[in-house]
Amino acid sequence: MKANFGKKEGEYSRLVSKSSNKLLNSLWEKKQIPEEGWSEHTLDLFLSWLSSHDTNNRVDMIPVGAGEREGRVLTPLVQRLHSNLTHGIGRSGNLLEIQPKALGSSMLACLSNEFAKHALHLLGLHAVKSCIVVPLCTGMSLSLCMTSWRRRRPKAKYVVWLRIDQKSSLKSIYHAGFEPIIVEPIRDRDSLITDVETVNRIIEQRGEEILCVMTTTSCFAPRSPDNVEAISAICAAHDVPHLVNNAYGLQSEETIRKIAAAHECGRVDAVVQSLDKNFQVPVGGAVIAAFKQNHIQSIAQSYPGRASSVPSRDLVLTLLYQGQSAFLEPFGKQKQMFLKMRRKLISFAENIGECVYEVPENEISSAMTLSTIPPAKQTLFGSILFAKGITGARVVTSSQSKTTIEGCEFINFGSHTTEQHGGYLNIACSVGMTDHELEELFTRLTSSYAKFVRELAKEDERINSSGR
Amino acid sequence: MKANFGKKEGEYSRLVSKSSNKLLNSLWEKKQIPEEGWSEHTLDLFLSWLSSHDTNNRVDMIPVGAGEREGRVLTPLVQRLHSNLTHGIGRSGNLLEIQPKALGSSMLACLSNEFAKHALHLLGLHAVKSCIVVPLCTGMSLSLCMTSWRRRRPKAKYVVWLRIDQKSSLKSIYHAGFEPIIVEPIRDRDSLITDVETVNRIIEQRGEEILCVMTTTSCFAPRSPDNVEAISAICAAHDVPHLVNNAYGLQSEETIRKIAAAHECGRVDAVVQSLDKNFQVPVGGAVIAAFKQNHIQSIAQSYPGRASSVPSRDLVLTLLYQGQSAFLEPFGKQKQMFLKMRRKLISFAENIGECVYEVPENEISSAMTLSTIPPAKQTLFGSILFAKGITGARVVTSSQSKTTIEGCEFINFGSHTTEQHGGYLNIACSVGMTDHELEELFTRLTSSYAKFVRELAKEDERINSSGR
Amino acid sequence: MKANFGKKEGEYSRLVSKSSNKLLNSLWEKKQIPEEGWSEHTLDLFLSWLSSHDTNNRVDMIPVGAGEREGRVLTPLVQRLHSNLTHGIGRSGNLLEIQPKALGSSMLACLSNEFAKHALHLLGLHAVKSCIVVPLCTGMSLSLCMTSWRRRRPKAKYVVWLRIDQKSSLKSIYHAGFEPIIVEPIRDRDSLITDVETVNRIIEQRGEEILCVMTTTSCFAPRSPDNVEAISAICAAHDVPHLVNNAYGLQSEETIRKIAAAHECGRVDAVVQSLDKNFQVPVGGAVIAAFKQNHIQSIAQSYPGRASSVPSRDLVLTLLYQGQSAFLEPFGKQKQMFLKMRRKLISFAENIGECVYEVPENEISSAMTLSTIPPAKQTLFGSILFAKGITGARVVTSSQSKTTIEGCEFINFGSHTTEQHGGYLNIACSVGMTDHELEELFTRLTSSYAKFVRELAKEDERINSSGR
Amino acid sequence: MKANFGKKEGEYSRLVSKSSNKLLNSLWEKKQIPEEGWSEHTLDLFLSWLSSHDTNNRVDMIPVGAGEREGRVLTPLVQRLHSNLTHGIGRSGNLLEIQPKALGSSMLACLSNEFAKHALHLLGLHAVKSCIVVPLCTGMSLSLCMTSWRRRRPKAKYVVWLRIDQKSSLKSIYHAGFEPIIVEPIRDRDSLITDVETVNRIIEQRGEEILCVMTTTSCFAPRSPDNVEAISAICAAHDVPHLVNNAYGLQSEETIRKIAAAHECGRVDAVVQSLDKNFQVPVGGAVIAAFKQNHIQSIAQSYPGRASSVPSRDLVLTLLYQGQSAFLEPFGKQKQMFLKMRRKLISFAENIGECVYEVPENEISSAMTLSTIPPAKQTLFGSILFAKGITGARVVTSSQSKTTIEGCEFINFGSHTTEQHGGYLNIACSVGMTDHELEELFTRLTSSYAKFVRELAKEDERINSSGR
Repeated sequence: MKANFGKKEGEYSRLVSKSSNKLLNSLWEKKQIPEEGWSEHTLDLFLSWLSSHDTNNRVDMIPVGAGEREGRVLTPLVQRLHSNLTHGIGRSGNLLEIQPKALGSSMLACLSNEFAKHALHLLGLHAVKSCIVVPLCTGMSLSLCMTSWRRRRPKAKYVVWLRIDQKSSLKSIYHAGFEPIIVEPIRDRDSLITDVETVNRIIEQRGEEILCVMTTTSCFAPRSPDNVEAISAICAAHDVPHLVNNAYGLQSEETIRKIAAAHECGRVDAVVQSLDKNFQVPVGGAVIAAFKQNHIQSIAQSYPGRASSVPSRDLVLTLLYQGQSAFLEPFGKQKQMFLKMRRKLISFAENIGECVYEVPENEISSAMTLSTIPPAKQTLFGSILFAKGITGARVVTSSQSKTTIEGCEFINFGSHTTEQHGGYLNIACSVGMTDHELEELFTRLTSSYAKFVRELAKEDERINSSGR
Repeated sequence: MKANFGKKEGEYSRLVSKSSNKLLNSLWEKKQIPEEGWSEHTLDLFLSWLSSHDTNNRVDMIPVGAGEREGRVLTPLVQRLHSNLTHGIGRSGNLLEIQPKALGSSMLACLSNEFAKHALHLLGLHAVKSCIVVPLCTGMSLSLCMTSWRRRRPKAKYVVWLRIDQKSSLKSIYHAGFEPIIVEPIRDRDSLITDVETVNRIIEQRGEEILCVMTTTSCFAPRSPDNVEAISAICAAHDVPHLVNNAYGLQSEETIRKIAAAHECGRVDAVVQSLDKNFQVPVGGAVIAAFKQNHIQSIAQSYPGRASSVPSRDLVLTLLYQGQSAFLEPFGKQKQMFLKMRRKLISFAENIGECVYEVPENEISSAMTLSTIPPAKQTLFGSILFAKGITGARVVTSSQSKTTIEGCEFINFGSHTTEQHGGYLNIACSVGMTDHELEELFTRLTSSYAKFVRELAKEDERINSSGR
Repeated sequence: MKANFGKKEGEYSRLVSKSSNKLLNSLWEKKQIPEEGWSEHTLDLFLSWLSSHDTNNRVDMIPVGAGEREGRVLTPLVQRLHSNLTHGIGRSGNLLEIQPKALGSSMLACLSNEFAKHALHLLGLHAVKSCIVVPLCTGMSLSLCMTSWRRRRPKAKYVVWLRIDQKSSLKSIYHAGFEPIIVEPIRDRDSLITDVETVNRIIEQRGEEILCVMTTTSCFAPRSPDNVEAISAICAAHDVPHLVNNAYGLQSEETIRKIAAAHECGRVDAVVQSLDKNFQVPVGGAVIAAFKQNHIQSIAQSYPGRASSVPSRDLVLTLLYQGQSAFLEPFGKQKQMFLKMRRKLISFAENIGECVYEVPENEISSAMTLSTIPPAKQTLFGSILFAKGITGARVVTSSQSKTTIEGCEFINFGSHTTEQHGGYLNIACSVGMTDHELEELFTRLTSSYAKFVRELAKEDERINSSGR
Repeated sequence: MKANFGKKEGEYSRLVSKSSNKLLNSLWEKKQIPEEGWSEHTLDLFLSWLSSHDTNNRVDMIPVGAGEREGRVLTPLVQRLHSNLTHGIGRSGNLLEIQPKALGSSMLACLSNEFAKHALHLLGLHAVKSCIVVPLCTGMSLSLCMTSWRRRRPKAKYVVWLRIDQKSSLKSIYHAGFEPIIVEPIRDRDSLITDVETVNRIIEQRGEEILCVMTTTSCFAPRSPDNVEAISAICAAHDVPHLVNNAYGLQSEETIRKIAAAHECGRVDAVVQSLDKNFQVPVGGAVIAAFKQNHIQSIAQSYPGRASSVPSRDLVLTLLYQGQSAFLEPFGKQKQMFLKMRRKLISFAENIGECVYEVPENEISSAMTLSTIPPAKQTLFGSILFAKGITGARVVTSSQSKTTIEGCEFINFGSHTTEQHGGYLNIACSVGMTDHELEELFTRLTSSYAKFVRELAKEDERINSSGR
């Protein structure tokens, strides 16, 4: 039965529609992260509005598809997990092009690129001119950058690669059709730092044969973030592109400051960062940032097809949900948590007769020596930690043996250097870590270590007694 | 208040848990598309079970993350749109490796690869030995294949490319660091077919400089699917890899038969197909199939990082939802619908004084001449169809002008040939098209054409009268 | 990076917003089931729009709650399962009142009432003037009607109740504070039909002591739907309200015809039907229909509080999803399926030496005799069917023992009559039953019966042999 | 392609299934709110598991429905919003009975009843023996209690009702078929308190004609929660049932203490509380608590049908999500917030020349005089607050006029007393209110008041000048 809806209700309803339209249109006009975060209801409203722009969701007429790809989705559950946005982003041959069938998905892509730029500005990279969110891992994104520079440097065969013992970084070079010239880091007290001299020499010698220098700003201690300022100056001096692998470096204020400085004093062509590691979204995307508008355009053009819109969607939803006000919070929190973790680790190390490497520029990862554990048992200690529900903690042992990756041989792979050491434990404090988690980490670390040592002792006893 | 739950209810509950476990374990053991499709409830059960295998969803202990990437997701809505599977697939440097932190995501990846293989077997590609689902578009997947072959053919610089006027296909070659040797199709009555002779000659001449030959099996009429059998024989004879771009070719029985024959009589190294175009899932993934187990292994190893699990998830959910019984239905339906569309198009063409190209091997796309529309007005006709809610219908005009893509010049880009023609309209019948849609398509086509012709006539009148 | 969104995209976006607004406003204006069903995307749009009208979802300002109930929901999952509509419907003391805090929920309630009326019109109850959807079971809804009539008939103590062996029907009378005068049905060949004479006599004798007569139109065979026309004439003649329990009677064309006729030739004050049984929504709601506007108003006013909006939501979503075009389909289908079931049951009965009762007016439930099964074993047969996954099939045995419900004693409860019989099996064909299900039902029935008979035989043998 | 899943992964997978089963079985065994809250993932797991117990979700065989109600749901969206639990709770005629078709839904109902009891214990009502969650508003639940006591007190016609100006409370009495004997509160300084003497006298006089006394423990100031201890002693002395309307009283420690004391020193037959107001779930349910096991059983039996499982589900999900550890938090927080609100209100009142009533026993609602606003303008002030986004704040004016509800006449309805006063503003602090909200409330209150006063002044000026 009809309730008595009257003039007042009608007016309110018009106000509601007006407010919604205003909110959405204003978002689209500004293309900026809103100041205050949005509620889940508002996110629903946003997704409904956006997906209405894709032709297969038209409400004013039944769409008829006469092409080979019309966003048809068979399974209702799958449809829903994509919020009816099924066309992907980009158009054959350019990730930035508007797809006429899928204006909503194209708007989503555009918003994600603009939001990413806004986020980098908020974090301190004010000079960034343009960003693109790609549904690719960091390695593929590095590869895409290198690929897009090929035509510019027709004689290039090599990429100067500052050794970082992570497979995907190295592979990204081969994937793009180049070969690495490997520069080992040098030891500076506890830290492993960039061998700037060698890079300079190589570039002077090889010049046009070099496609770019790839530096890395986020890494496991005791490796330090690379000296991007110095490399940037060298690249500028010799007109060689500079590619920064900043995988999870947005978490570190110091790293951001250094990248900004590197741009000011020299040359940075593209900075690549993982979406999941910095923005707390699921794995699957990266954001490529550039200090010139056209740098991104050429990268977008080198992607050969249409791509998933999911990473773009996840980033946009997350930044809408946070708003500017809450966006910086987890980064500030990470800084505090890292210091707390460091203090706790130093104290734990002291108790057990170990020490923590001093790597002042690495504000994410720490390394504690494992000198009291026989090298042959160190890996076992790592797997005990994993069994205790601690993920990401990583035992690095030292070894003279060779590891071959894509045809390159590495001694002591995993340690970022051929130099031998006594073994160490890496733990990192990433954005999103909670106080409770940190407490729990040290509780488990302590008890696991105690148990491990007791068992080692028992074993020794057995060996000793059986050895008699 | 407690109801009187007794022995009977307890037994039934144990039976329920047992049935669920049996279903899921048996799926995992067999890694095959089940015979009957699963309900949404069962899909929920499956997703809950799977995500329980990722460390951050452990129910027996609170997981503690001490690494740089722990599947942390900030926004509840995003978490939910990923069904708590947030770690992605693969491990730094190999898409097929198991991620210890994310066993559930790894199992999902494995299931998607096995399901893809099973699906291809059901469709008739019985000799396929191995498949991988990648969260990449078709172009990127082609590129990944080429990249993975680089080390095997160190002298290779070129890819023999049978002209297909689609940017992403061409770009995939450049993206991988090679250059195309372009072979134009030749005219055979209405069809544009593979110039086998020329391919043979090039391969004889260039030998080791050729990385591979790339053929295309799904395309817009009047281009015919390539003669993969002949090319495959040539490739086998000269020991050159053969890469098949089968973007949306799984829809065509004839194409599948030809790929199977090509493998039998010669050499096919990898066959790449789009997920969304063949399996009715959202844009974002592709499946690469090979007739040898190790071919896929080396492709998987060349991906430099961890990747989104979304396309794998979408494929698995869709195939579980369909089951074997319903899986083949839409393909059979496409065949019928294509014949129906063809008949209707011929009849429509006759009515308006046009004709439909005879391209017997193309079972997906048709082309109708537009000789009665002045070339200068043809594009307008296309945009009228789009405005009427018809997506994917595509007007192709003929032109002498050049289009430059990645430095290559093409005359008459869009027509797959430099040959001039009188303009035509492409419409395709893809998997998922419904009877209702087809009816509606011709209703709108007929009325749009009538209106368009009337307006052309009026305009002519105006011009004539003003011209007097 | 910004894509080149231009004038064309801006125009299309405005068109999109306009179309959405038009669709939603037009729905609200007409308050009618749309002709064509809506897609899931459009349902999302509708829910987002609706929930925007509740104050706690305002997007233009942050709402501040200063009352004792503000729609606060703690758990995100719960919030989502309610699509952000958390205020319920109605206002302290009237289900039809608009809740100022929750205009969206109030609109939803209004739409559900109007849709229910529209649906009844489409089904043939054209004279219905007003409906209300209540989040109550059928029994409670009957009770609510009786309660609302109390003031009108201050001397009333009794409800004339035409025996139907279903507890909730009887209890609804006691719940409302009245007592039943029980009238047993009379046997007419196979059917149990209304004893019109007795009803007439009681009403003549008791007059104002009678609150109303309650008839039942949907029941298990061999009970027939009540003779609502005759009762309606009696009620009109003596000015006694007539309450129709039409729990799942909307499925039967014949029942609808009879209710319409009863209204024309006499008096029907309210007709109550279950939502889940007729409209394929989850259990939890009912719709009360009346042929006069003010009848519903007074029922709505007697509900003492605010109520769940879930049944209203489920009905509205379902009718939007179906549209008028598909709404009648399942009802037509039920009719065919019932005839098919009947034919199959007759054939099955013949094969095993049983027969099916002829109850021509019951178009939903059938009953087959179980004369070949010893009475003591009949219940066992029923539980075997349940174990085979057949739900709803019901074995009715005959018994002289008494069952007491709310103080009333019944002989042979479950059979709708004290008359003894040889036992029978009830199966029903409800709306939503599929062909596949029907086939499967008879397959399992046949095999279960065969197995049951074999085991009975074996048992007899054992008894016989042990008896020697 | 198959990844190399080995023994280790197999073991982990078995561990995962074991952990899940253990968690769920242990929950079911204990039927207690878990100590730690569950994640959304675990809630999904729980819902999947539960719904697997309903026959129509069986995974081991295809269920066949042969009844009139089989949980069929037409619309996928509706199915999903019910997490596949569509059968409702209870069985024709008893809310506590197990529904054989729907064991999962029955388990859910059972868990909700046990969780409710556990929650009341945690809050301090340790003597509660049994609870039932009903999908009914508070008023209907009160009515259900009264209905269930009818048979026990066959001569009862009246309910002694301590005036509380809320329609649903009064209506619940009429709904159950009784009439109220209204007892006005008496003034004790600022508070309106229970007139214990009068209640005692009425019960002495009327005895068996009284069904029960209904007290109210949560109300708007200046009405005080009723003196349940004194009434309880009277009821015990005269053997009259005592029904406590504790709608949102669980929020107040003092109220809980008093109900516990009332039970100890006298007689409390049932205590009814709203789910949404106390547990932060959507509107639609209530929990009835009793200090004797069989009290609830007879209430459950008087519900005439099967009911929605949604309120039970919402409660269970919420309590699982919170866990015991977080469950008490919002209640503690409410206490602090109420004191803060009170301080702020007193300070605001002082500033504008008003005062706040001293009602020490009311720990939820406060009332501030509005003596400085002319009575005729007070309502306007209320609607201005609403327009500013403040919901729930309520202006109460004084009036000599009569309001008729269900035939009863009230003078000054809304004030809980016929006594005249100068008008006041009610604001409440309910569970879930946040600091931010409180701040915002006073900011808006202050600015709205200032604006309102300015406009009153202007208006006065106009009147004065025009009056000259």
